[in-house]
Amino acid sequence: MRKYKVKRLPLVGKMFVVELIGKDSKINFEGKFYCRNNIYMVAENGNINIGDNVFLNNGVSICSMKSISIGNNSALGENVKIYDQDHVFNKSGLMYKQGYKKAPVVIGNNVWIGSNVVILKGVHIGTTLLLLQGQLLQKMLKTIRFILIKEILRRKK
Amino acid sequence: MRKYKVKRLPLVGKMFVVELIGKDSKINFEGKFYCRNNIYMVAENGNINIGDNVFLNNGVSICSMKSISIGNNSALGENVKIYDQDHVFNKSGLMYKQGYKKAPVVIGNNVWIGSNVVILKGVHIGTTLLLLQGQLLQKMLKTIRFILIKEILRRKK
Amino acid sequence: MRKYKVKRLPLVGKMFVVELIGKDSKINFEGKFYCRNNIYMVAENGNINIGDNVFLNNGVSICSMKSISIGNNSALGENVKIYDQDHVFNKSGLMYKQGYKKAPVVIGNNVWIGSNVVILKGVHIGTTLLLLQGQLLQKMLKTIRFILIKEILRRKK
Repeated sequence: MRKYKVKRLPLVGKMFVVELIGKDSKINFEGKFYCRNNIYMVAENGNINIGDNVFLNNGVSICSMKSISIGNNSALGENVKIYDQDHVFNKSGLMYKQGYKKAPVVIGNNVWIGSNVVILKGVHIGTTLLLLQGQLLQKMLKTIRFILIKEILRRKK
Repeated sequence: MRKYKVKRLPLVGKMFVVELIGKDSKINFEGKFYCRNNIYMVAENGNINIGDNVFLNNGVSICSMKSISIGNNSALGENVKIYDQDHVFNKSGLMYKQGYKKAPVVIGNNVWIGSNVVILKGVHIGTTLLLLQGQLLQKMLKTIRFILIKEILRRKK
Repeated sequence: MRKYKVKRLPLVGKMFVVELIGKDSKINFEGKFYCRNNIYMVAENGNINIGDNVFLNNGVSICSMKSISIGNNSALGENVKIYDQDHVFNKSGLMYKQGYKKAPVVIGNNVWIGSNVVILKGVHIGTTLLLLQGQLLQKMLKTIRFILIKEILRRKK
């Protein structure tokens, strides 16, 4: 059953596009929600849950075929992209006939994600976490509770 | 002579902007074409050829002053940018008076390009190829037929 | 006092969104101004100054709480993002209650900035400067007058 539930009226910018594909798709807003322009959310037999007091900056897109949740008081920077699926891509045959690999994405409370961060399937992000601009996340961040920008830069060297 | 030929009706999202500048500009769709929102294509005395069954995700832009072709059954992720020209940029004088360096871009069949990939002039991409999110491509990939994400990550180390 | 001063008519694309928040916000265009689509400028008690003959490509956003200036004859590529502030982000308490750190951003004359470059608070960019696609700038570039792409690539190794 399809649901598109908003507890209170969101304050949204221009070009806020939401697509629900398939009968089990659901997008849920837990409370206050703010966004700027060009936001895109698609649930294709997927489940998107947006916590209370979440802010999405220009160009954020969230694309779910499984489950994507964002905790309370979190803010996503410009052009942040979140996907809970990848194409299966074997050498033989056409990619678009090979389906998808899926795994839930979980983002905790009070997380600030910088511009251009791309978050792929299976990523779990804890609570009170700052992510550097432009990072590509492909692994679990469950155990990391707090990262300063300096620490990320040090790891990159 | 300007042509903007679509063999069958494309399924396009909102804000699909196409510009043809100069009398030799051409944008050609070989067959089925799908795209989401905020797609931008400009041919300025250039030639864009889109193969059959191509998908462009949100925010893709293709900017041609020479020639850009995308093969059949290929899919471009969000915010992928393709340019077949760079500004000439000499120390003395203003950049915008120095013109452009141009070289064709060729993308083969059955290629999947991840979000935020930027493809610059002269890049040739083979067939059945997966490109990691956020890569900057400046050299020939003609001889590479298939790259797994793991292999790309290993090279980066 | 709010000002939104344009000396001559700008040539702008679709979805050009400008926001002035707070009584001291100001956005000033010194002269000719060109941009493509999905441009976003917000001054929140901030000051944005755009020099003569500046070009902004699709998806550029400029977000000022202090001061951001762009010199004459400069061109910003697609999705370039400029911020003169960061969230204060201490471990204890909610981020959105902690305010901002601010420092002016200055971009000189005749600068070409490639696609997806993100420029953070306190960055000063000189004159006649070329920036590689996708760089994240967090430090002063005041003393650098000219960088070739080759040189940037060499530094990365």
